[in-house]
Amino acid sequence: MATGTVAPGNSTNAAKLTFEELRAALRQIGEERYHHKHPFHLLMHEGKLSRGQLQAWALNRYYYQSIIPIKDAIILSRAADPSFRRVWRKRIVDHDGDDQRNGGILRWVKLAEATGLDRERVMSAHEVLPATRFIGNEYLNLVRTRPFVECVASSLTELFSRDLIALRMEKMRQHYPWLASALDYFEARLTEAPEDAAFAIQYVFDQAGTRAEQEGVMQALRDKCDILWAQLDALYFAYVEPGWPPPGAFRIDAKYEGNRG
Amino acid sequence: MATGTVAPGNSTNAAKLTFEELRAALRQIGEERYHHKHPFHLLMHEGKLSRGQLQAWALNRYYYQSIIPIKDAIILSRAADPSFRRVWRKRIVDHDGDDQRNGGILRWVKLAEATGLDRERVMSAHEVLPATRFIGNEYLNLVRTRPFVECVASSLTELFSRDLIALRMEKMRQHYPWLASALDYFEARLTEAPEDAAFAIQYVFDQAGTRAEQEGVMQALRDKCDILWAQLDALYFAYVEPGWPPPGAFRIDAKYEGNRG
Repeated sequence: MATGTVAPGNSTNAAKLTFEELRAALRQIGEERYHHKHPFHLLMHEGKLSRGQLQAWALNRYYYQSIIPIKDAIILSRAADPSFRRVWRKRIVDHDGDDQRNGGILRWVKLAEATGLDRERVMSAHEVLPATRFIGNEYLNLVRTRPFVECVASSLTELFSRDLIALRMEKMRQHYPWLASALDYFEARLTEAPEDAAFAIQYVFDQAGTRAEQEGVMQALRDKCDILWAQLDALYFAYVEPGWPPPGAFRIDAKYEGNRG
Repeated sequence: MATGTVAPGNSTNAAKLTFEELRAALRQIGEERYHHKHPFHLLMHEGKLSRGQLQAWALNRYYYQSIIPIKDAIILSRAADPSFRRVWRKRIVDHDGDDQRNGGILRWVKLAEATGLDRERVMSAHEVLPATRFIGNEYLNLVRTRPFVECVASSLTELFSRDLIALRMEKMRQHYPWLASALDYFEARLTEAPEDAAFAIQYVFDQAGTRAEQEGVMQALRDKCDILWAQLDALYFAYVEPGWPPPGAFRIDAKYEGNRG
């Protein structure tokens, strides 16, 4: 109960889904629960967020970015197969970078700086919403405690992220042109995410040997969607409406209440 | 970083606080961060919550109640001293009950039933907000991973709960008289919480041997206050304003939008 798995329903004795059926079921979950429909993103894409609200988003989402390689290292630590680990470690390199190039975390910092925040302020994570921290930790809980195939399945929001990122980049260039030169994070994700998702969906299809295990895969994707959605709920509550950040969290500077650069 | 401890500041070389100073510092944290000031509670005490909103609160808060004995069992599992365990296990009995009497969990179910919810619906926890689950799990993370004295300190919100509960009982009888016969949970907590807090504050004073450890105790109380506060943020967002429960969560029935019984 405490870690949040809902027991599979009465379909667990049903036949295993084909690859196409499983993919369709996962896409259906994304259609219903992925955060592309969240009101915070709708405001963002309509150009209705202030610069201060974009700061709050960048600052809190930084915390999420910062734990992604930790999440992937936990998955690596639970993977018995070296060939799986060789594929999966790419994700850590993508986020943490190497001698040749910055990773996703530093590309996100660049985005946050373009909103007008200091790098140190972002990277210290002192002002993130407690809810952002709790929700991020829930993702770490998930990959520590759930069946391995479900941990891999939790990454499958990457099936949906390319479309959202492409739309976001277009809308940011249109509505917040002062961010246009800082979209490297999203540019990289346009190719990384589909590559990663293609591996992960094939892996979960191959490894989830029964319909019950496939139901577990679907539940893991639902839970991951809930994690992303809840982050935006917390942001919306604190910084849009009613606009009540909790004690100690980031507060928007009055001079950033418009959306100009 | 991932588990949320903020490193103690520059006061760690300062002298250890006396018992009175430590108690005053903890009370100050409560004054700033305890959820008695949360807008959801203010609405509750002003009689401005609908019956449906009280249902949402009772349903979600049930999930929190349900994990409290799990939290206390984790603390028990980390306690090396049998005399500590003998004292602490009272908390599990208080919540889970025994042959002679119901515990706090069933008393909370009675409260939820008085709001008009079915027992099974409450106890299944299927409709709790994902955020409620994530935040509850964060409390379990805290007591699994932090220094033992900080785990004990995280219970010290009980220093403040008596006053809040006494006020709540008075306001519930006044504004929601249809709940008046279902306040057993709160009645019991009026005596349990101060007893438990008296033991815990003496314990943390005795065991936190340095100022740095005392700072850790204070941070644990701040973190626990953030946990309680974030639960009400999530409820407020979903069920008061703007009033957007996430996909799959409890929705208020239109017939319960007033506050009559």
